[in-house]
Amino acid sequence: MKIEVCYTPQAYPLFHNPDAVVVVIDVLRATSAITTAFYNGVLKMIPVATVEEALEYKNNGFMVAAERNGEIVEGFDLGNSPFGYMNSKVKGKTIAITTTNGTQAIEAAKKASKIIIGSFLNLDAIIDYLNAEKKEVLFVCAGWKNKFNLEDTLLAGAVADKLIFKHGFDTHCDSTLAAIDLYKIAKHDLVKYLANSSHRNRLANLNLERDIKYCLTPNQCPVVPVMQGKFLVKA
Amino acid sequence: MKIEVCYTPQAYPLFHNPDAVVVVIDVLRATSAITTAFYNGVLKMIPVATVEEALEYKNNGFMVAAERNGEIVEGFDLGNSPFGYMNSKVKGKTIAITTTNGTQAIEAAKKASKIIIGSFLNLDAIIDYLNAEKKEVLFVCAGWKNKFNLEDTLLAGAVADKLIFKHGFDTHCDSTLAAIDLYKIAKHDLVKYLANSSHRNRLANLNLERDIKYCLTPNQCPVVPVMQGKFLVKA
Repeated sequence: MKIEVCYTPQAYPLFHNPDAVVVVIDVLRATSAITTAFYNGVLKMIPVATVEEALEYKNNGFMVAAERNGEIVEGFDLGNSPFGYMNSKVKGKTIAITTTNGTQAIEAAKKASKIIIGSFLNLDAIIDYLNAEKKEVLFVCAGWKNKFNLEDTLLAGAVADKLIFKHGFDTHCDSTLAAIDLYKIAKHDLVKYLANSSHRNRLANLNLERDIKYCLTPNQCPVVPVMQGKFLVKA
Repeated sequence: MKIEVCYTPQAYPLFHNPDAVVVVIDVLRATSAITTAFYNGVLKMIPVATVEEALEYKNNGFMVAAERNGEIVEGFDLGNSPFGYMNSKVKGKTIAITTTNGTQAIEAAKKASKIIIGSFLNLDAIIDYLNAEKKEVLFVCAGWKNKFNLEDTLLAGAVADKLIFKHGFDTHCDSTLAAIDLYKIAKHDLVKYLANSSHRNRLANLNLERDIKYCLTPNQCPVVPVMQGKFLVKA
């Protein structure tokens, strides 16, 4: 049961593997927001790549989230702050969502046979899910506009580390080895380790320190969102 | 004087920076071979992307090196083993060269205003060169068929670490921060650290342990190959 890590959506075609479960990761903040949404009772989510598609869902009466460059797109009610999904208004709802990087990563991996959503918030839940599936695993990091980012890599490393050293998975992939070693450096204080990272600073400039701390605190939302057709649902 | 690291030739367009000196890295083994060649008196090298172009140079009487998947291409005299360049036959010669990854990385970066060749063999020489240039720096790792690899990342980390902490360069780039942290883990024993890496194992299967140890031993060839038009020459 081999593991690979694909650092950016751009590289996905090089890693495509029909036998693998794909874990899409956008820690700051799309996959953290999605995980939080399902934990708070959202019924379905529809990831879409463009703001135009999101607008179409809005015009058809859906609740819609749209984020670009860290901020809610004008005219939409929700962005990708997890705190936007912590209220009773979302319960039982179907929400369409588009974000700068996260939904692009889902779009890139759309030919995968199975896609789940990973974040630190559901760390142990995805480890248990992958261990039960007993299939190959491909992590697809959202990165930032197709550049490598640290926080997504750290989550891939955290999951890979546990799968390999506790559950008998293996890897021959340098990006997986690097992710595990970086996670081992960072794990004792993720917030501090990421103090100099590019996206954390981008968000800090938007006064999103509360979001950052929340997204980097493991196991607050033990649910596994999984793609079924065009919908994300709770596994 | 900011530093960025581009992990694969595929990603180069996202990082293109006309103000930067580009350092192309293919530790195992193209840039190690090129560095060794110039240290042993080669006059010029002509990196070409395809075996067909290499063949054309051969038919025009040039000495030509061609490697694919770790082995010398049939019909050529040289591959990318540095040991092939340690003899008097290469002195004063112009050699065309094509390799699986290294010359693809040079090709990807061809719009850069300046390209130099980096390896552990000329580690301190490239640090001194970049420090004297006082320009932005972009490392372009050759990787393996457009996937991330560890050994090229470690060299980028080694150079970036020295430039930032000793010479006043800086970075806001997650791939640079990751490269530096990985180098710090690996630096005390590069050969041991890379024992599980994908390309090292690929080469070990080809009985190239001697090449690996040589390529990972810093500062044996204090020269800086630099692109001038279509030629590599000694700076």
